[in-house]
Amino acid sequence: MKNFRTEGIKWFFKARNVAIIGASHTKGAIGYVELENFVKGKFKGNVYAINPFRKKILGIKCLKSIKDVPEKVDLAIIATPNIVVPKVLEECGQKGVKAVVIITAGFAEIGEMQLTKKLEEIIKKYPKMRVIGPNVLGILHIKRGIDSLFNPPYRSKRPKDGKISFISQSGALGAAVLDWASVRDYGISKFVSYGNAMDVDEADLLGFLADDDETNVIVAYIEGVKDGRKFISAAKYATAKKPVIVIKGGLTSEGAKSVASHTASLAGDAKVYEGVFKQCGIVQAKTLKEVFNFAKFFTNEPLLKGDRIQIITNGGGFGVLATDAVLMNKLKLAKMQEKTRKKIQKVSPRYAIIKNPCDLTGDADNERFRVAVESCLEDKNIDGIILILLFQVPTIKPSIDKMMIKLLKNREKPVAVTSAGGKYALKHKKNLEKAGISTFNSPFAAARCLAAMWEYVKYRKKII
Amino acid sequence: MKNFRTEGIKWFFKARNVAIIGASHTKGAIGYVELENFVKGKFKGNVYAINPFRKKILGIKCLKSIKDVPEKVDLAIIATPNIVVPKVLEECGQKGVKAVVIITAGFAEIGEMQLTKKLEEIIKKYPKMRVIGPNVLGILHIKRGIDSLFNPPYRSKRPKDGKISFISQSGALGAAVLDWASVRDYGISKFVSYGNAMDVDEADLLGFLADDDETNVIVAYIEGVKDGRKFISAAKYATAKKPVIVIKGGLTSEGAKSVASHTASLAGDAKVYEGVFKQCGIVQAKTLKEVFNFAKFFTNEPLLKGDRIQIITNGGGFGVLATDAVLMNKLKLAKMQEKTRKKIQKVSPRYAIIKNPCDLTGDADNERFRVAVESCLEDKNIDGIILILLFQVPTIKPSIDKMMIKLLKNREKPVAVTSAGGKYALKHKKNLEKAGISTFNSPFAAARCLAAMWEYVKYRKKII
Repeated sequence: MKNFRTEGIKWFFKARNVAIIGASHTKGAIGYVELENFVKGKFKGNVYAINPFRKKILGIKCLKSIKDVPEKVDLAIIATPNIVVPKVLEECGQKGVKAVVIITAGFAEIGEMQLTKKLEEIIKKYPKMRVIGPNVLGILHIKRGIDSLFNPPYRSKRPKDGKISFISQSGALGAAVLDWASVRDYGISKFVSYGNAMDVDEADLLGFLADDDETNVIVAYIEGVKDGRKFISAAKYATAKKPVIVIKGGLTSEGAKSVASHTASLAGDAKVYEGVFKQCGIVQAKTLKEVFNFAKFFTNEPLLKGDRIQIITNGGGFGVLATDAVLMNKLKLAKMQEKTRKKIQKVSPRYAIIKNPCDLTGDADNERFRVAVESCLEDKNIDGIILILLFQVPTIKPSIDKMMIKLLKNREKPVAVTSAGGKYALKHKKNLEKAGISTFNSPFAAARCLAAMWEYVKYRKKII
Repeated sequence: MKNFRTEGIKWFFKARNVAIIGASHTKGAIGYVELENFVKGKFKGNVYAINPFRKKILGIKCLKSIKDVPEKVDLAIIATPNIVVPKVLEECGQKGVKAVVIITAGFAEIGEMQLTKKLEEIIKKYPKMRVIGPNVLGILHIKRGIDSLFNPPYRSKRPKDGKISFISQSGALGAAVLDWASVRDYGISKFVSYGNAMDVDEADLLGFLADDDETNVIVAYIEGVKDGRKFISAAKYATAKKPVIVIKGGLTSEGAKSVASHTASLAGDAKVYEGVFKQCGIVQAKTLKEVFNFAKFFTNEPLLKGDRIQIITNGGGFGVLATDAVLMNKLKLAKMQEKTRKKIQKVSPRYAIIKNPCDLTGDADNERFRVAVESCLEDKNIDGIILILLFQVPTIKPSIDKMMIKLLKNREKPVAVTSAGGKYALKHKKNLEKAGISTFNSPFAAARCLAAMWEYVKYRKKII
């Protein structure tokens, strides 16, 4: 039984036209950036500027009200002062606008309960009009150029199009993460900052993204959930279809208090949330860095079929740290088949240690790595691989990137490449990343990803 | 009572001349890179190449034996095949060499006990000759161009000169970390990969670096300790003088097993080590990333005087995550003085939340940040600050870097700047980093550093 509501949410992303209510002529102002994003960006539909006091902004004729738009409106973005919002939202309802984003802040989160109540009434009155906000950064759909983020693109680069969708209760956090994603070359499909969530909330969005073909992995920053049962229902619906990674703000009592003044929602007990997330098959990230790592790993890698991990390394110390990391994260060390061991031994010196970790030692060359990776990919006793590859040693030829990309092309097991270092190493890592191979700086981060995936796989096995 | 031995270790770093035993003419070979580093690098002393089969390498006349060197030798580096090592080490003893680095591997770690025993005897016979190794990457002293790392500099950039010294039982791990440090702009004074530690071990090195004026912070990667009492004595000696950050490999039983075949040492129980580290005032890092963060933080920041942390932010979500991070890491949220609150309120809009976290909100400008940081630095109820600074928002002017650098110049409290983002944000972060301000991607990492520092401060308070 679905008790979340996905109806109409598609119009935020499929909008064929958009009206900016509160379009501003002041460069850098929110109402200006909003309009600029649509006028100068990739958006192909009609753009309307609503401002009763101006004639033209950015070459676009201003209309006095949304009601003056000469066609049906799919998407309206409200960036007016807070006291005007009820009036313009009511007009949106009368006009039959399909989707509205209220960027404006200054409602329940600062105790403005009268204004909040007015919005509530309008939202109830027009149930078919879906509303995101207020108090949000808004939405982003990279592919279609829908971009209501008010951080100018020169300061906050938009990521490339991809398969991760990201919802965030916090706008600034969302924006910073997107910006971060842009330099790390992550592909994003949709982003929603949902703020005070007066109509569309995290549950509605999870439900919508679960059925969205452009989304393979859902990431969410959640501060508080108003309707627990609704959330659980939507989360279960989503995790049955694709991985959902959540980072929760307000896990401590003081953190929860600061949530109240941030997005006016209830944060609740850490243990309760952890339990709920587990029960719903949600992957919980502990830090922002983990959110990134998990998202990358789930996007790139095939799912684990078991929990037996093989470590391959050309650095003994990294092998030791990886071993610790595997066991601390409750995974198992794989025991490779005898034929695998023989194949690797054949191309390795006597002092190489062909166990787990498989230490090819500091003078390992490309061929030793090729045989080790190839035979471990084929080995039925191995479910996943942590591949520690230190590019700095003289025996590794630069062609190793191409070799690895070829070897890992149609891999049926997840492989986490770990490689610390400077410019030279980073260049090689970037080559692998671009080919859709997951790379990490530390063995611990690699093991955390494998463990998170294994938790998700176990959940999926249980429900199917 | 000191039972570690620092005598003579200075000659590894103060050497006025160096002999490369096993200098090779094969480009890229270890014996070639060793010689090349000293010939082409910053080293100003005499360099001797020892190779009985060659006449000249890299323009340097080869000598048949160390005994043929026409002056007293301060430092010899051995890069011959393993079976030759006892013979050339004996010759070093006869020659009266002060310090020897045995790069060569292939001793106890692969079960070569006969060769190992021979080395043991020679080391006993010449107690004044200090020996690092075998099975090491060797040593690095940036300032004086002493560089026995066999990863060529074009693949593994050397970091700049600085105040962190780093000892590592694993060579490859050490090299990768140094290389990583080079791009992150960390300054390193000395590096030692001490491998099988047949003479000089981690305790001797800790004792030596404790008294080294060029070292402010000691970082160590340790797999196993042979003499627990010696280690504790040296660690206590060192932590009484400066912070010591340790990452321990082989914390799990399987990890410990793989240590045995890596550096032939005993890894022992995780809990035992944790207890020992705590008892000695050692700061234990859990991941490589943390090693970096801790080293940076201890180098840049004044020590905490208490555990009351103030969070200042222009992003509500980050404020929430930081609050969680502070409490999860057993620190306290500071309660700012009323006069501080008033000063900040004066330059902030009504909807700013001047508490802890102090949310200056998404439209905070430079001035709001200036007043908040300045007054929190002065506030006696605040011991440390997590400063979340999202550069992407339009109201933050680029001059904020200069302003912050000036404000934080002679700070008497640690400040951890947290700022996620892409190119634009990274450029600003780098400006701050270059001015010796500690920056982080995630509030959790910032809080971990403050907590590690507080642990160290509590230890210091107890012993003084």
